[in-house]
Amino acid sequence: MIEQAVLLSTGDELTSGRVVDSNSAYIAGRLYTLGVRVAAVLKVGDDKDKLLWALGQAREMGNIVIGTGGLGPTADDLTTAIVARFLGVELVEDKHVLADLKGRGERHGIPWTSNAGKQTVFPAGATIIPNPVGSALGFNVEMGEGKRLFWLSGVPHEMAIMLNQTVLPWIVNRVVSEEIHEAVFKIHGLTEAQLDELVKPLELDRSTKLSFRAHFPDLTLRLTTIGGALEREHFVSLREQISALLRDFTYAQSDVTLEEVVGALLNQKRLTLALAESCTGGLIAHRITRVPGSSAYFVGGSVSYSNQEKIRALGVSPITLERYGAVSRETALEMSRGILERAGADIALSITGIAGPSGGSPEKPVGTVWASIASSQRHDAKLLRLLVSERERIIQGTSQAALNWLRQSLLEL
Amino acid sequence: MIEQAVLLSTGDELTSGRVVDSNSAYIAGRLYTLGVRVAAVLKVGDDKDKLLWALGQAREMGNIVIGTGGLGPTADDLTTAIVARFLGVELVEDKHVLADLKGRGERHGIPWTSNAGKQTVFPAGATIIPNPVGSALGFNVEMGEGKRLFWLSGVPHEMAIMLNQTVLPWIVNRVVSEEIHEAVFKIHGLTEAQLDELVKPLELDRSTKLSFRAHFPDLTLRLTTIGGALEREHFVSLREQISALLRDFTYAQSDVTLEEVVGALLNQKRLTLALAESCTGGLIAHRITRVPGSSAYFVGGSVSYSNQEKIRALGVSPITLERYGAVSRETALEMSRGILERAGADIALSITGIAGPSGGSPEKPVGTVWASIASSQRHDAKLLRLLVSERERIIQGTSQAALNWLRQSLLEL
Repeated sequence: MIEQAVLLSTGDELTSGRVVDSNSAYIAGRLYTLGVRVAAVLKVGDDKDKLLWALGQAREMGNIVIGTGGLGPTADDLTTAIVARFLGVELVEDKHVLADLKGRGERHGIPWTSNAGKQTVFPAGATIIPNPVGSALGFNVEMGEGKRLFWLSGVPHEMAIMLNQTVLPWIVNRVVSEEIHEAVFKIHGLTEAQLDELVKPLELDRSTKLSFRAHFPDLTLRLTTIGGALEREHFVSLREQISALLRDFTYAQSDVTLEEVVGALLNQKRLTLALAESCTGGLIAHRITRVPGSSAYFVGGSVSYSNQEKIRALGVSPITLERYGAVSRETALEMSRGILERAGADIALSITGIAGPSGGSPEKPVGTVWASIASSQRHDAKLLRLLVSERERIIQGTSQAALNWLRQSLLEL
Repeated sequence: MIEQAVLLSTGDELTSGRVVDSNSAYIAGRLYTLGVRVAAVLKVGDDKDKLLWALGQAREMGNIVIGTGGLGPTADDLTTAIVARFLGVELVEDKHVLADLKGRGERHGIPWTSNAGKQTVFPAGATIIPNPVGSALGFNVEMGEGKRLFWLSGVPHEMAIMLNQTVLPWIVNRVVSEEIHEAVFKIHGLTEAQLDELVKPLELDRSTKLSFRAHFPDLTLRLTTIGGALEREHFVSLREQISALLRDFTYAQSDVTLEEVVGALLNQKRLTLALAESCTGGLIAHRITRVPGSSAYFVGGSVSYSNQEKIRALGVSPITLERYGAVSRETALEMSRGILERAGADIALSITGIAGPSGGSPEKPVGTVWASIASSQRHDAKLLRLLVSERERIIQGTSQAALNWLRQSLLEL
């Protein structure tokens, strides 16, 4: 049986534009890797009739329906009662859930309100879906004709845990009674179209999916195989082929950020980092310091936005600035050496470029960026040509390219 | 007639999770302010039958249907042909569009392909919706029973322009033949719940809506009134009441960011800014430099993450650090004074705090942040207590609170 899913979500915040729904894209992405097609995504407000309509449509189009939202204790949270009505079953109180919720409330000194009772009842026949990080439990219930409805919390991180821990394993069991094998490739240096072109020749069998996710400047490729020993063998072979094919473009084979990879390398090699940023304006420092524990390896940096600051804070020579310009190999080299020595770090990265919209010239168009790395053992510079044109994308893309070059340099140290 | 809208979107990227759909939230938000309810949001892949189904459902539930996506030149872009089939009309080539597209291609040296012809035909009877920033034109067509279908490009910034320039004015004309009056309040210092509580007592008539949009740390309140002279009077009175009510919490009365407001003030007063950031790690500098033209007023800054850098780059006294700690009024004051004098700026902002997850103590819990502002005329410090607990939210929230304090200080200078 080919599985077809329909995704539902409910909440007035979705139909009045107060919230961008990221849940459906997340769920669709996870289902796609299992080979489950999403036939449609339906969103309605907190409205009985609309939700009943959506449930009816979903059951008609899909054999797996995954809904989110409306499980809270307040009056506008209607989901559980509407689902019971749709299925023509009673609402049944779960004594374990009731005792557990009352216990939690007591421990936190929150008085029990009658509203909270809404979260302890479920449609008769439903199996409860645990929510390890919140009070809204989900449920899994038969819709007739072997079709299955899952309902999860609408809070994104609660939804993700409930989906990954309970729903996906259930689907995998039903679909193939086999395991999921998954490999992740975090990519830099390719556009989505180039990546697509590179992996196109790979021979995928029916148990295997390749999926992309692009969120500039981040690009992720995910290989998923569902199956037993034979499929696993195919998966391992494919993973190796992809690893070889994308060797020069892969900065990690797990779900981590580039700044986390750089941070782990600095930690591992017991090296400290300093930064000198001009056109990235502090973004690289911000990315480095988003990582918890970054104070162990990040000394600090200078956002030397003006020439005056490049001279004062980094010791760049006024003659260099005059002769070669602020955006030049020579200035980048003096910036990295300057911050390395002054901050007393083991390695330093500098950036100077033209983020636009103004400031470009025929020789140095907007998107021209020089980066430099300095350490006691090396001192070189690299021209980054950003092929995007918006200021924000140049700044973001530069931070990514520079962090990737820093990563490569750390591997060689 | 009460207007009910249904939003459609089409594209395999939506049902495979490759892209998070922000279009529907944007459109829903804009319609909400006009008093148009969104009955449902339907998303389907690039699939003829599913799109026909969605069109049928949408016509049944709404009298205004707004669709996005699938207008491109490639094989999977099916929208225009499917809509014509749904309506039972022919596709008609538009000679002006054809000439225009061919002309554009020639000017850019792109050869004309037969595929491109897909973008020059429209369902018979449709009115073309101009797309000033892309090649995919939209259309507006009667669906029967006085119902109206609009179809727009799926590229977010193209969609927004087409919606605001063509679709919303059309809807306003039809709904009330009156004007839209709109006021925007950008808010700092209130949670969404507190804001809701504050504006609840306001007496809104049926022609007026208040809508919120929260994207941490950003909070926006929008007042919209549709109507003639009488409604306009009511709108002006409400706008004044809200201005007074939210005086202490409003940093702008238009759709701008806090860093743009700060930048405009610096420009207007011809003042230069320098920054000394510890726990925000460069985020404030990044926000300041995201604004085009910021080099006119931003000198630069120091990301003094370690004590060593606070001493070296800012001249903070080791005795101060020893006696009061890095997160203290005294250290913040020395940081702002240090960067002011060294960078030679007119005004300086410093930040030092505990972003967590580790580093907190009972006296200085995670979320304790000191900010300081220095200029030739003033020198003071302020304790910011961030009431969020995640590292990323503490960093983002601190940058917002600090920029707002800087804005207030600039107004007094």
